[in-house]
Amino acid sequence: MSDLRPPEHQVAGHRAAPNKLGPLVDGAGLFYKPLQALDRGEQELAFYTAFSVHPAVPPRIRDKFFPRFHGTRLLPTAATPGESHPHIVLDDLLQGLASPSVTDIKIGACTWPPRAPEPYVAKCLAKDRATTSVLLGFRVSGIRVSDTGGAVWRPDRSELKGTDIPGVRCMLRRYVSSVGGDGMDCARAAAVYGGEGGVLAQLRELKAWFEVQTLFHFYSASILLSYDANAVTAAGGGGGVRVKLVDFAHVVESEGVIDHNFLGGLCSLIKFIADIVAETSDAAPSCDS
Amino acid sequence: MSDLRPPEHQVAGHRAAPNKLGPLVDGAGLFYKPLQALDRGEQELAFYTAFSVHPAVPPRIRDKFFPRFHGTRLLPTAATPGESHPHIVLDDLLQGLASPSVTDIKIGACTWPPRAPEPYVAKCLAKDRATTSVLLGFRVSGIRVSDTGGAVWRPDRSELKGTDIPGVRCMLRRYVSSVGGDGMDCARAAAVYGGEGGVLAQLRELKAWFEVQTLFHFYSASILLSYDANAVTAAGGGGGVRVKLVDFAHVVESEGVIDHNFLGGLCSLIKFIADIVAETSDAAPSCDS
Repeated sequence: MSDLRPPEHQVAGHRAAPNKLGPLVDGAGLFYKPLQALDRGEQELAFYTAFSVHPAVPPRIRDKFFPRFHGTRLLPTAATPGESHPHIVLDDLLQGLASPSVTDIKIGACTWPPRAPEPYVAKCLAKDRATTSVLLGFRVSGIRVSDTGGAVWRPDRSELKGTDIPGVRCMLRRYVSSVGGDGMDCARAAAVYGGEGGVLAQLRELKAWFEVQTLFHFYSASILLSYDANAVTAAGGGGGVRVKLVDFAHVVESEGVIDHNFLGGLCSLIKFIADIVAETSDAAPSCDS
Repeated sequence: MSDLRPPEHQVAGHRAAPNKLGPLVDGAGLFYKPLQALDRGEQELAFYTAFSVHPAVPPRIRDKFFPRFHGTRLLPTAATPGESHPHIVLDDLLQGLASPSVTDIKIGACTWPPRAPEPYVAKCLAKDRATTSVLLGFRVSGIRVSDTGGAVWRPDRSELKGTDIPGVRCMLRRYVSSVGGDGMDCARAAAVYGGEGGVLAQLRELKAWFEVQTLFHFYSASILLSYDANAVTAAGGGGGVRVKLVDFAHVVESEGVIDHNFLGGLCSLIKFIADIVAETSDAAPSCDS
């Protein structure tokens, strides 16, 4: 257990610190997420427990788009020696990526479960309206891009919060650029977003499932995109593009209805990414276009 | 002009009365919608004016899914002799249906344009949460079903307002039944919902457009379904199934983003209707199933 450490490339969510709980990784492929307060941890655990064995979930969807669930583990808390805290054990989604480019995109115009308590609804609604969620059907909660030269671009949270629609478009271009700033080139768009195993193809497969699944509504869940900037530049391949759903503290059962809120946001994200792929096959775009 | 009268089969919206403005039809194929108060009429007129000539709207989409716009006309108001009121002139969508079955389905979990004034947002949000809009992505605003025997089923507005998810499913079954009550048979499901020119095929064509169109966001618009109960029973055909969008007082420009709110609700409606078609090809369902 001594190898446990905070993940190096986390882009959103709570972070571990000497006296603060946060996720840990073991470097061997596992990710330890501390159970959150206010029943959220219990709810997320209940989701993973139900989802991981649900007979109506296609195995391909579960394996391809969700982190594998490995149960729970009590880990000692650094802040209070002698005490321990339960963690959900999952696959480390960034394992094996030497130079990861990662973005966390919270999906859905509405991030509050319809039957949530009123103060929580009000808080979420205010944030959905203050960010791009209501307008776009999604918001970028975190992003980290590895440039070819080894530099990393990573806007802080306050910068992300103030992002408008053109800003989101720009970030999704920046995410597949090998250089930043005015020279932003979208050089990796075809490899990462396009092609057979690319983000777009994977998102469309996910969409086909959301058009029919009436098991869960994924309020406030995110799509985590990642690829290896080293691999995409060196080999010209997709750099092991990964598309995963994360953050299930507000998932609810669906009452026989599709998750139209998640699906709408997902379709909006697909259109944004499809536009970037189409543009970059013509000419190099910039944030001004 | 003496032939103008309130439409016989209107299922939702304001109704004309001796001292109240409401839509009129001329019996020859035209529908006259009085400009609504509070800028809504002006906004709806602006939408029709822009939409009817917009070069980026595919002619097939415009012709198939929208009432044709014939400009405006000043009509005398019955309440105040000597005064007149501007009306938007449109195709009468129920023209030619001898025994129309009609339903008005308001699409979208969210019926308020994001930049609407605060009191309006609060009012719409409360209604979206009190009805099935937030849960389902749509709500049934009106329904009228012609039984084979000539009887008409038409729940009133208070009944519609209190409808829950199973109630909506039941209404969408009732809409394609030739008899009501416990004997509800979904006898018209294959003809009206299924098949080549059926509701489902038309909704899927509409969906394909909403997956790419970034012109307008249709807040608070409805899909009006209609068919001729006489034709569907007599000939065994689809009874001239019509799928039209109506009510554009809250349409806004889209800022380059798809209408994820409308699209999500549309996909939810498609899933409900597809389920009914699938069920009825197996066995006769009831409201209990």
